[in-house]
Amino acid sequence: MSELPSVTEAEQRIRASLPLFATERVPLDAAAGRVLRQHVLAECDQPPFDRVMMDGIAITLADAARRDFTVAGRQMAGMAGQVLADSAGCIEVTTGAMVPVGCDCVVPVEQTVREGDHVRLVDGWVPAARQFIHPRGSDCRQGDRLLAPGVRLRAPELAVLAANGVAEVEVAAVPKVAIIATGDELAEVEQQPLADGQIRRSNDRALAAALRDRGFVDVQLTRVPDDLAATTARLAELLATCQVLVLSGGVSVGQRDFVPEALRALGVDKVLHRIAQRPGKPMWFGIGPRGQVVFALPGNPVSALVCAVRYLLPALEQAMGLTSRPAERVVLAAPAGTSPALTCFVPVRVHHDDAGRAAATPVPAPTSGDFSALPHTDGVVELAPSDHAAPAGTVAPLYRW
Amino acid sequence: MSELPSVTEAEQRIRASLPLFATERVPLDAAAGRVLRQHVLAECDQPPFDRVMMDGIAITLADAARRDFTVAGRQMAGMAGQVLADSAGCIEVTTGAMVPVGCDCVVPVEQTVREGDHVRLVDGWVPAARQFIHPRGSDCRQGDRLLAPGVRLRAPELAVLAANGVAEVEVAAVPKVAIIATGDELAEVEQQPLADGQIRRSNDRALAAALRDRGFVDVQLTRVPDDLAATTARLAELLATCQVLVLSGGVSVGQRDFVPEALRALGVDKVLHRIAQRPGKPMWFGIGPRGQVVFALPGNPVSALVCAVRYLLPALEQAMGLTSRPAERVVLAAPAGTSPALTCFVPVRVHHDDAGRAAATPVPAPTSGDFSALPHTDGVVELAPSDHAAPAGTVAPLYRW
Repeated sequence: MSELPSVTEAEQRIRASLPLFATERVPLDAAAGRVLRQHVLAECDQPPFDRVMMDGIAITLADAARRDFTVAGRQMAGMAGQVLADSAGCIEVTTGAMVPVGCDCVVPVEQTVREGDHVRLVDGWVPAARQFIHPRGSDCRQGDRLLAPGVRLRAPELAVLAANGVAEVEVAAVPKVAIIATGDELAEVEQQPLADGQIRRSNDRALAAALRDRGFVDVQLTRVPDDLAATTARLAELLATCQVLVLSGGVSVGQRDFVPEALRALGVDKVLHRIAQRPGKPMWFGIGPRGQVVFALPGNPVSALVCAVRYLLPALEQAMGLTSRPAERVVLAAPAGTSPALTCFVPVRVHHDDAGRAAATPVPAPTSGDFSALPHTDGVVELAPSDHAAPAGTVAPLYRW
Repeated sequence: MSELPSVTEAEQRIRASLPLFATERVPLDAAAGRVLRQHVLAECDQPPFDRVMMDGIAITLADAARRDFTVAGRQMAGMAGQVLADSAGCIEVTTGAMVPVGCDCVVPVEQTVREGDHVRLVDGWVPAARQFIHPRGSDCRQGDRLLAPGVRLRAPELAVLAANGVAEVEVAAVPKVAIIATGDELAEVEQQPLADGQIRRSNDRALAAALRDRGFVDVQLTRVPDDLAATTARLAELLATCQVLVLSGGVSVGQRDFVPEALRALGVDKVLHRIAQRPGKPMWFGIGPRGQVVFALPGNPVSALVCAVRYLLPALEQAMGLTSRPAERVVLAAPAGTSPALTCFVPVRVHHDDAGRAAATPVPAPTSGDFSALPHTDGVVELAPSDHAAPAGTVAPLYRW
């Protein structure tokens, strides 16, 4: 057991082996959720002009005691700049408008009384220089670096792209992923009734859902029989058309676990096989002749999902160019079992306590085949090898489903 | 100011006004990320048979001292059950296979030595009853409730659906959402160059990204000029074809903020207008004649996004039937400004400290128009009205972008 790579070492070997996927240019409306692969600089000062922050009037404070003004014009949002020539006058303004030339103060409409063409300030209201003016360039200056490659494009990033005139954006291309289920015991979800000895295919659906949730939407599902020649032939086809292969099952040490053999025959370089962890020990990972990323996950559902969230998804995110952030860390709310030689992954449900801690309650699966309790969990915590159970209060990284 | 509803009251009024969106049946392969709207019961015992957990041999422990066995057959995964008649024999088994009738112990292949048709147990290996057998029904029993309406279908839920033969699943229909930008100052993202007084449309792209991220993928963008008749006409069309309208801009108290007037004319019942909060005070919310959900958000980008994550997204999730969970709570890593009368929303960046706390560093926006710093943040914390700044260590709810 001791010669198996640790979880950390396995992660490092995987990370060091990965390619960087290609980029593509997409219209802004198709960019949400994608991984940015270009720099974005400020197109112009932001705001691009001294900007009115309230509906009201713009005035000149030359004569600080003046409280009555004659309306000399209107400056609406979107209009080119008006000019106020005389400090006895004012210009009506709306939020978002340019501050008229000659004005240095905005008085909100609530602080004014209008009578015909005259506007009076409400008693007691004291106008101040630059009041309710959002100055040109105060948010950012033309040429400022606003976004760097490696960020996921969420709402704030989309606002920045649109505001800076980026109508097409360079993002990571979404790789084609094939999920391959192995195992002659697998029945289709539609099959009725189940024959003796059969269980339904479910891992591939779960893996596809995890992938789609992270933006890997180009996913095809297929299955191969427990047969070396058929498996090799199908994998050859998929290696020719996909950037990522994810197999489930067929990687233990049994007679029929010929996935490693098939991959070897196809020139997929093994980077690792088996990791000092539970569940998920049999995981296999390699790189194909054209840089294809190949994960062969254990066939047990919990094992497969643990390997997916701990290795597969972070690996594909790295290959898309996403800047990685440290794993979320949570506090065990109850003791959890560990192993002296193996890193253990334990399903947990997370809630946020009054101290602002993320408290993780273990929901151990009785076996690595049992996933019926997983819907009540948020992910798994990673517990280092230990001779003792991890006590309540242990801080551990969380990998969400 | 004091008569404005609080954030909590606004949330309650919104929640009490919402319809429940319709359901639809979708194939399992289209169900990832959707909100479940049916119960799912266990189709059969899980596992459906006593299941072999390791490749190896299955034996009968009748004669506990026996260490040599004659291979009497093979039981592969997916095969109907074999029978072992004689405790001097064994049956080769693979992971996932049925335990052959008459066997009560599985010995892993690593603990055996094979010579022709004979298998010997490795010296020192002590077989035990029921070893490496995953008993029928130990994960769940036929008819057990596995999933309830209101869960989001992630990887674990997809596994449960597939494993239980649910080939079509009843989920919340995804509502048609229209995002309507108002403001004559808005230029299209492609327009070159910007004219004086113009800024580019960006709120609608940001709102669309936030919606898509939560599964609201049927989003159309449109804009209306600052004109009551044109706005009313366009909103009438959208109310006829969409379940959700999200407007940005036009809801303050200025002359040109006629969105509330247009909505009133179209029979959209106002539930609230203005909330005791900063930013986002001018928000308007109402329900249309056919139960359409109408949010009119402020035009300032930060205000619009704050209102989206605090009200719009939770409201639409409720209307989809998603069971709500308490907001994530974080700990302020530095003081943050508050207001005596208004709830304040402050952008923060979250990192997980060594104590398992989510530490939130405030990244205040200089103005509610400034979103150039938001890409460096994870969301906003909600700070209750107070005469003093919120000190470091304050625990506050987090709303992620």
